[in-house]
Amino acid sequence: MSASVTVEILVVGNELLRGEILDTNTHWLCRLINSRGGRVTRVTLLPDIEEEAAEAVRSAIDRGVDVVFTSGGLGPTDDDLTLAAVARGAGVELALDATAREMVRQRYDDFHAQGVLAEGGLNPFREKMAWLPMGAEPLPNPVGTAPGVLLRVDKTVIVSLPGVPPELEGIVTHSLADFMDQTFGGGGVFARSLTVRCNDESIMVPALSRVVDRYPQVYVKSLARALGGVPELDILFTAVGGDAELRQAEVDGAVAELQQGLAELGVAHWEKPREADERVP
Amino acid sequence: MSASVTVEILVVGNELLRGEILDTNTHWLCRLINSRGGRVTRVTLLPDIEEEAAEAVRSAIDRGVDVVFTSGGLGPTDDDLTLAAVARGAGVELALDATAREMVRQRYDDFHAQGVLAEGGLNPFREKMAWLPMGAEPLPNPVGTAPGVLLRVDKTVIVSLPGVPPELEGIVTHSLADFMDQTFGGGGVFARSLTVRCNDESIMVPALSRVVDRYPQVYVKSLARALGGVPELDILFTAVGGDAELRQAEVDGAVAELQQGLAELGVAHWEKPREADERVP
Repeated sequence: MSASVTVEILVVGNELLRGEILDTNTHWLCRLINSRGGRVTRVTLLPDIEEEAAEAVRSAIDRGVDVVFTSGGLGPTDDDLTLAAVARGAGVELALDATAREMVRQRYDDFHAQGVLAEGGLNPFREKMAWLPMGAEPLPNPVGTAPGVLLRVDKTVIVSLPGVPPELEGIVTHSLADFMDQTFGGGGVFARSLTVRCNDESIMVPALSRVVDRYPQVYVKSLARALGGVPELDILFTAVGGDAELRQAEVDGAVAELQQGLAELGVAHWEKPREADERVP
Repeated sequence: MSASVTVEILVVGNELLRGEILDTNTHWLCRLINSRGGRVTRVTLLPDIEEEAAEAVRSAIDRGVDVVFTSGGLGPTDDDLTLAAVARGAGVELALDATAREMVRQRYDDFHAQGVLAEGGLNPFREKMAWLPMGAEPLPNPVGTAPGVLLRVDKTVIVSLPGVPPELEGIVTHSLADFMDQTFGGGGVFARSLTVRCNDESIMVPALSRVVDRYPQVYVKSLARALGGVPELDILFTAVGGDAELRQAEVDGAVAELQQGLAELGVAHWEKPREADERVP
């Protein structure tokens, strides 16, 4: 793999570990980061326990991860403790941030004006969302009330996002666009995919190994489906970042190499049409 | 929370970190374990790197976790390295297991007899799936070819499952039924849920805090939806294990307490109908 930007995701919330909610934020973030040439190296789902989340943050900083995204736990209730955990993991205090406080107040006033909420303005529970780790920057939330939070610690940037998917996606799309561009660059991902009529991965191992050896820059992954159903396998070829023409040529070469190997084995295969734009969002 | 059986899940597979596949196995396992009174304390998604998966296994053993489920990486290809990682993490060697070898051979013969595969029998790639950590027990796979694997290390049981969802679910349902009963017991989960017409969690904080204080055995979680949509919140009440009548009474008490608090605030609320059987499978 290239020396791309490394990313860890920390998902905080008992409801995920209890199986009450399916975590879709991780998949959305992984797709986005990968499409921009970043590399997610680990995802951890943690309970609403401040010390555990703090330890995970500290550990990611110590390992020199470039970007840590946290999702969940930014709301007004007592079990929303992600910012306290980030502060503790980063070794700073929480403090009331005037800009964040104004953001929160404004959002409640907006919802009140729209008739969505009976009362606008602040109270201590609403104001809790404006207590940020010292030195952090609040990120406007275009969907809900809790601002996102960006904190730089050593060489690591910690971005804390709400767990409600439209809020998480809204902040990343609207308030983190410049950060994403600066951090991940244009990047660009070059991908092709073959579908193979064969549910016996084992017969393809030598052909796959040859492709991997010849094209080390191309990431090749075969994805089995359940046997007994449609006897098909998907094989994904991906190259990321750097010289666009070179990456494309490498992917094309790897696909051609495998097509030849499969033809020799007498295994039916065809190219899977790609979605028009794989980039998210 | 009760002194319930602790569970960690290790999900191995680059395709998840790259956002190519949405991980649904974790949610299925979390739901199942929670419904039987177990407690998932952490989930980690890891790349196909043997040392990282081995370190995660070792760390879970060191922390005395009762059960570790791994998902993914049991297949015939070179990047299927979960069993090597489990062996390394547990400090044992891999060895060809005669029972597992016979299971794998039988499955390939079955698929061949059904006309699903051109060739039955074994080859070195297929046989790879029968190299288990020494001392491990293979678990029949009723759907695919790779057996599940159960290994006891100190007080921890490590259960390795394939990543293809019907295979993972098939092994747990058909081949782990006794283990699940012995480990988690009848358990039983008592749950109710209120839906609240209110998208401002903050006004309910005092009422929620009162319920949590009075009913420490009941797990209470409020789940916000995006503001601007339907102004509703779900509040879940759950109690697990032990005396069934007592747990039910505690949940009923907690629900009644919150209903009263919401009525005092003038917030509309109603009980969400439960599914007929929350137990999975």
